[in-house]
Amino acid sequence: MHSRKKVAIAGATGYTGSELVRILHQHPGIELIAITSESHAGKKFSEIHPQFLGIVDHRLIKLDDLDINNTDLIFLALPHGVSMEYVKVLKGKNRNLKIIDLSGDFRLGSPELYRQWYKKDHIFPQAIPDAVFGLPELYREAIANATLVANPGCYPTSAILALAPLLGAELIDQGMLLIDAKSGVSGAGVKPGDTTHFANVHDNFKAYGLCFHRHTIEIEEQIGRFSEQSVKVQFTPHLLPVDRGILSTIYFRPRKGVEESDLVNALHIAYDASEFVHIVSVPPSIKNVRGSNFCHIYATIDRRTGNGILISVIDNLVKGASGQAVQNMNLMLNFDEGTGLKQLPLKP
Amino acid sequence: MHSRKKVAIAGATGYTGSELVRILHQHPGIELIAITSESHAGKKFSEIHPQFLGIVDHRLIKLDDLDINNTDLIFLALPHGVSMEYVKVLKGKNRNLKIIDLSGDFRLGSPELYRQWYKKDHIFPQAIPDAVFGLPELYREAIANATLVANPGCYPTSAILALAPLLGAELIDQGMLLIDAKSGVSGAGVKPGDTTHFANVHDNFKAYGLCFHRHTIEIEEQIGRFSEQSVKVQFTPHLLPVDRGILSTIYFRPRKGVEESDLVNALHIAYDASEFVHIVSVPPSIKNVRGSNFCHIYATIDRRTGNGILISVIDNLVKGASGQAVQNMNLMLNFDEGTGLKQLPLKP
Amino acid sequence: MHSRKKVAIAGATGYTGSELVRILHQHPGIELIAITSESHAGKKFSEIHPQFLGIVDHRLIKLDDLDINNTDLIFLALPHGVSMEYVKVLKGKNRNLKIIDLSGDFRLGSPELYRQWYKKDHIFPQAIPDAVFGLPELYREAIANATLVANPGCYPTSAILALAPLLGAELIDQGMLLIDAKSGVSGAGVKPGDTTHFANVHDNFKAYGLCFHRHTIEIEEQIGRFSEQSVKVQFTPHLLPVDRGILSTIYFRPRKGVEESDLVNALHIAYDASEFVHIVSVPPSIKNVRGSNFCHIYATIDRRTGNGILISVIDNLVKGASGQAVQNMNLMLNFDEGTGLKQLPLKP
Amino acid sequence: MHSRKKVAIAGATGYTGSELVRILHQHPGIELIAITSESHAGKKFSEIHPQFLGIVDHRLIKLDDLDINNTDLIFLALPHGVSMEYVKVLKGKNRNLKIIDLSGDFRLGSPELYRQWYKKDHIFPQAIPDAVFGLPELYREAIANATLVANPGCYPTSAILALAPLLGAELIDQGMLLIDAKSGVSGAGVKPGDTTHFANVHDNFKAYGLCFHRHTIEIEEQIGRFSEQSVKVQFTPHLLPVDRGILSTIYFRPRKGVEESDLVNALHIAYDASEFVHIVSVPPSIKNVRGSNFCHIYATIDRRTGNGILISVIDNLVKGASGQAVQNMNLMLNFDEGTGLKQLPLKP
Repeated sequence: MHSRKKVAIAGATGYTGSELVRILHQHPGIELIAITSESHAGKKFSEIHPQFLGIVDHRLIKLDDLDINNTDLIFLALPHGVSMEYVKVLKGKNRNLKIIDLSGDFRLGSPELYRQWYKKDHIFPQAIPDAVFGLPELYREAIANATLVANPGCYPTSAILALAPLLGAELIDQGMLLIDAKSGVSGAGVKPGDTTHFANVHDNFKAYGLCFHRHTIEIEEQIGRFSEQSVKVQFTPHLLPVDRGILSTIYFRPRKGVEESDLVNALHIAYDASEFVHIVSVPPSIKNVRGSNFCHIYATIDRRTGNGILISVIDNLVKGASGQAVQNMNLMLNFDEGTGLKQLPLKP
Repeated sequence: MHSRKKVAIAGATGYTGSELVRILHQHPGIELIAITSESHAGKKFSEIHPQFLGIVDHRLIKLDDLDINNTDLIFLALPHGVSMEYVKVLKGKNRNLKIIDLSGDFRLGSPELYRQWYKKDHIFPQAIPDAVFGLPELYREAIANATLVANPGCYPTSAILALAPLLGAELIDQGMLLIDAKSGVSGAGVKPGDTTHFANVHDNFKAYGLCFHRHTIEIEEQIGRFSEQSVKVQFTPHLLPVDRGILSTIYFRPRKGVEESDLVNALHIAYDASEFVHIVSVPPSIKNVRGSNFCHIYATIDRRTGNGILISVIDNLVKGASGQAVQNMNLMLNFDEGTGLKQLPLKP
Repeated sequence: MHSRKKVAIAGATGYTGSELVRILHQHPGIELIAITSESHAGKKFSEIHPQFLGIVDHRLIKLDDLDINNTDLIFLALPHGVSMEYVKVLKGKNRNLKIIDLSGDFRLGSPELYRQWYKKDHIFPQAIPDAVFGLPELYREAIANATLVANPGCYPTSAILALAPLLGAELIDQGMLLIDAKSGVSGAGVKPGDTTHFANVHDNFKAYGLCFHRHTIEIEEQIGRFSEQSVKVQFTPHLLPVDRGILSTIYFRPRKGVEESDLVNALHIAYDASEFVHIVSVPPSIKNVRGSNFCHIYATIDRRTGNGILISVIDNLVKGASGQAVQNMNLMLNFDEGTGLKQLPLKP
Repeated sequence: MHSRKKVAIAGATGYTGSELVRILHQHPGIELIAITSESHAGKKFSEIHPQFLGIVDHRLIKLDDLDINNTDLIFLALPHGVSMEYVKVLKGKNRNLKIIDLSGDFRLGSPELYRQWYKKDHIFPQAIPDAVFGLPELYREAIANATLVANPGCYPTSAILALAPLLGAELIDQGMLLIDAKSGVSGAGVKPGDTTHFANVHDNFKAYGLCFHRHTIEIEEQIGRFSEQSVKVQFTPHLLPVDRGILSTIYFRPRKGVEESDLVNALHIAYDASEFVHIVSVPPSIKNVRGSNFCHIYATIDRRTGNGILISVIDNLVKGASGQAVQNMNLMLNFDEGTGLKQLPLKP
C-alpha cells in the first residue's frame, strides 16, 4: 500500500477534536501524526477523553513541536479568535500547508462583518479571500483546490443545504425567511457553565441568542450567493435536552405557482449525486442521523396557508462539524469524498 | 366551616385525570366525591397511579353509579369523541350540572368545523352554542356563568395567551402568523405506542402533524375574535424529549410604527391583574413553569429584520389542561380564582 | 388568626435554599422574613431563581442585617464547613435561636470522626453534643426539644429509614450490609463542573465516591444506635441522569428463621403512624415520590439465595433535604408535622 | 479480492437486528444476502428503520425464500421461544449451517433449567449439547469450531467477563456474590408497552425482575465453570433512563490475603490479549463504551470493609448482543476477530 497522508489536529479538549479523532480512526488513507494542546501537552489524549483508552493514546504535543513541513493537512479544532492566530502562524511558516479551520474565523466574507458579528478585530484579513466555505455539496471543486477551508457552522450547514437549491431554482419569494432551529447541548461546547449544567438543560427547553446569533450572517451570506438579491433571515436557535443533533424548521413563501413537487425535485437534482444528503418523504427526526454524516431534508407546502416548510436534520458534531471537515479533507487530499465516513446512525 | 362543594372526575387512567386529582387534593373548598372509570371500576385509583398510594385511594366507580343530582361539578378527562357522549348523557339527566370538558369536543364554534378537523360527526351540536371556551384570562365572566366549559387545548393556551392582547391592540399585521411549537411527551397521552416509546423520544426531536394539527383551527377561531379580519396561522408542533411543557415561538409582522415596548405594554395591560400570567424580560424556559399553573410570555422585535417574536411557556398538563380546568372550576363555583393552584414550579 | 412564626433562610443560591422557599411558600403558619446571601445581597431572590418571578421577590440581605432576636428559626442552606461558622456566630449571639443545619457539619457524633471523613477540623465541637439528628420518624421528641438540628444527608435518609426498624427488631445478621445507591444530579449541587455537565450525565451512568463517601459514616453511626454491636456498611453511590430522586438497593443476610413477612411487619410497626413513609408491595420507582416528602420502602427475601433486599426511594431535595427540614421545623415550632408538605408527587 | 461470505439475518424489526445491519455494513468480508421477516416481507428494511434510508434498502423476505444452501451463516435476531423453532427447522434442512442465536434458547445447559427459568418446554433439546456459549474472550476455540453459537445475554456478558478470571484465579470467597446491575431501555425491546413508555422511564429509575430474572441462571452456570463449587449469585437488574448501556456493580468477599493488585493482575492476564476488554483504573461510565464493542472493567477492595467491588460496563446492544454476535461470526468464518467492529464510542 502506498504511504498514508500525514494529518494533525490542533485542539484536543473540545468535542470537535474528539470527533475528528473518532472519525479519522476509521480512515484508511491517513495517519494521525499529532494532536496538539498548549495546556495539556505531555498528557495522553485518552486521559482527557477516556472513551479512547487503549485505542488512541497519542501523547499531546505543543504546536511548536509539530513538524509542519512533514504535515499534509491540519485541522484547527479551536475557539474562534484563537484559530485565526494559528492560521497566521502556520501560513507564515508554510504558505501551502492545507488547513481546515472548524472555527468561525474565516467563514465571513469581510473583516468588517467579522468585527460586527464577532465583536473583535480580525487579525489576519489577508487570508479571508483565499478561504473557501467548506460545504462540499455546494463547493466541491473550490474545496479540492483550496489550502484554507472554513468549515461551516452547524446551524448554517443544516439551513444552507435546505435553502440553497430552492433559492437557486428561484422557487422562493424572499419577503420572509424564518429559521426556527433546535440544537443539542454539545453545540455549547465542553466547558462547564450554567448553560450546560444538567439541571438547567434536562427536562427543559428554551430559545437563546435571539436576533443576534452569529450564524445568522453566515447563513445570509451563503444563501445570498444563490439569490439575485440580498437575503435577510430570521434565525432563532433553541437548546434541546439532547447530546447531539440539529433540526431546523424553515418557513418561507413559495413563488407564485410553485408546487410541493417543484421543491422536492429541486432538492433531488441538487443532491441525488451526493452520498450524504437524502431527501425524505416524512418529517425526519434527529436520531435518524445521530453519529453519522448524513443530512435529511423534508419539503412541503401547506395548501391551506400557502406557506413552504423545510425540515432539515444533521448531527451537529458530524455533518455540522468534524464529519464535514473530514469530507473536506477527502476532497483536498484527493480521497473518495466519503472515505472514513461510513458509520451509520446510532439508533436507538 | 361551611360545606365543601362536591366534585367528580370522569376518566381515571389518563394524565389529565391524575393531574386533576393531584391539584384538587390541595383545594380546601371541594370534596372529590368520585372518580369514574368504565374499564377499571372497582379498582383503587392508586393501583393505576402508584404515586397516590396511601393518599388518594378512592375506589373507581362507573358513571351510572354517580349521583349527579348530588354533584356540583364534573370534570370530563376523556378522549375526544367519548366526551361528547358523556356531555349528552349528563345534560339529559341534569341540564344544570356544571361540566368542564377537557377534550376538544366543544372547543370549536360549529359542527362543520368539528367534522372537518376531527374527521367525525358531532353527536351533540345543540350544546355547542352554550359551551364557553375556558381561558379564564380572556373570558372570566362568561366562564363564571357557564354550565359547560370547553377547556382549551394545551398548544392553543400557550399561543392564544400570547397573541390575543396584541391582536386586540391592533399591533399585528396579519399577513403572516407562524407558531413553531414544542411540547413534552405527556401531550401524547398515557397509551403506549411507537410515538411514546422511550427509544423513539429520548435524545431525539422531530416535527409532527404538519399543516393538519387540530389545534390550528382552535387557535384561529379564538384569536380571530380579537381581530377585525379572519386569521390564518401556520402551526407546527414538535415533540420534545421532556415529560411536560410547551414552548411556542411565534413570529409575526408588527404593524408599521409598532415598537417592542408597545408589545410589552399591551401584554402587561392584559395580564397584570392575572395571577398566573407573567410577562418576562428574558426568553423563558419550560422548567420555569414545570408543575405549576403559570404562563411566562416574552416579546421582542428584531430591529434588523423588523419581525416580531413571542415566546410563551406553560406546563401542558397544568395551565394547558388540568390546572386551567381547576381555575375554571373556581370561577364556576365562586371560589377565588387561584384556590388550590399555589404550587410553585418544580425546578430542578 | 394568631401571628405567624418568623423564619429565615441563610444561603440563597443552592437547590436546598430554593426548595425551602418553594415548600415554605405553602406553609400557612410561618412568615419567611429573610433570605440571606453574602455574595448576592441586594438582588432579588427571583433574579437567581427565575421560577419564582412575581411570587417570591424577596430582596436578599447579608446575615449581619438579620434581626435574629426577632427570628424564631433559621435554616442554614450552606456548604459544609461554612455552616459550622454560621452556627458558631448565631449561637454566640443568641443561644436559644432555633437552627436547622442542612449541611453535614453537625451530623457526626465527634469532632474526630468529622476530621477523618470531612478532612478538616471542626471549629465548633462544643455544639456537637446538643445537635439532634433530624430524622423525624426516628427522633420526633428529641427534635421537638432541640435548638440545633442536623438535617440528615439524602443518602442516609433513604438508607436509615429502611434499615433502622429491621436492626431494631433484630432481624438482620450484621456480617454483611451493602447499600448500592443511585442519585439524581441535583445532589451534586448548583455549581457547574465536569460532573454536572449535561454531556457527562445525560444518557450516561457511573459509580463515584467508592469506599470513601461521607454518607457512609453517617449511616453507620445512625443505624448503629439500633444495633447491639457496631455496624459496617459498604456504601456505593451512583449518578443517575435524572434531576431528583434517590433509590437505594440494600442487601443483607436475615437472621436465621426470619421471613419476608417479619421484615414487612417491622416496617409497618415503625411507620404506620408516620404520614410520609409508606411500605409498598412492588419495587418502587423514584418518580413515585418526585417533588414530594414521601419515602417508599419495599422489602423482600430471595428464597433461592436467602438474601434480604430492601429498596427505598425518596426525592433527595425534599425528604432528603428541604422537605425533611420543614418537617423538623414543624416539630420544633409546634406545628402539625405535615404542615406545608401536602404537595403530591409530580408524575409524569 | 476473493469472494465475500454470504450472511443472512432472521428478524428485522428489533434492535438486535438493526444493530447487526449497522455493524455488518462496515464489514469488508461479508455480503448481507438477506434479511427475513414473516410479518413485514416485501417491505424495505429502511421503511422499518428510517435511519438506513438510502443505505440499506434490502427488501425483506420470508425465511422459506432464503437459499440456505447458499448461506454461510445466519443470525437469529428473534424472541426466545421462536428462535428454537427456527434452529430446529434450519438444522433439519442443513445440519452444517452456521447459526448464531441471539435469544436465550440455547444458553442454558439443560432442558430442565430452560423449563424452570423460561417457563416453557424446550422443543429442540437435542441441539443443546452442541451449542457453544458465545463469549469469545473465554471460549474462542470452541466458538471457531461451532455450528451453533448461543450469543450471551447482555447482563451476563458484563458480569461474566468481570467475574470469571477472578474465580478462575481462586481470588473470590463464594459465600456471597451480588450483582447490582443497571441497564438502558433498549434491553426491553422495540415493542411499546408501559415499561418503555417515555413518561415511565424518563427522569425515573427502578429495580425490576428481583430474584427471578433469567439472566441469573445464565451467570451462575457460566461462572460455575470457573469455580470448583457451584455458585449462587444475587442478581438485581434496574432500568436506567438511557438508550443503551449496562453497568454492573459486583460485590464479593476476596479470599484471605487477596489484595486489590491481585484482582487487577488476574484481569490483565485474562484480557491483555483481547481487543475489546480494557481494565481501567477509575470507575467507568457507560458512555465510555456507547455504540462500541468495548467492555471496561474496574476492580477494587475497600480496605475498611474488606469487600471486593467490580464495575463492568458494556453497550448492551453491541458487546451485549449484536457486536458480540459479529465477533463470534468472525471466529466462525475465520476472519480476524475484530473485523467490522472498529467503531469507537460515541461520546457525547
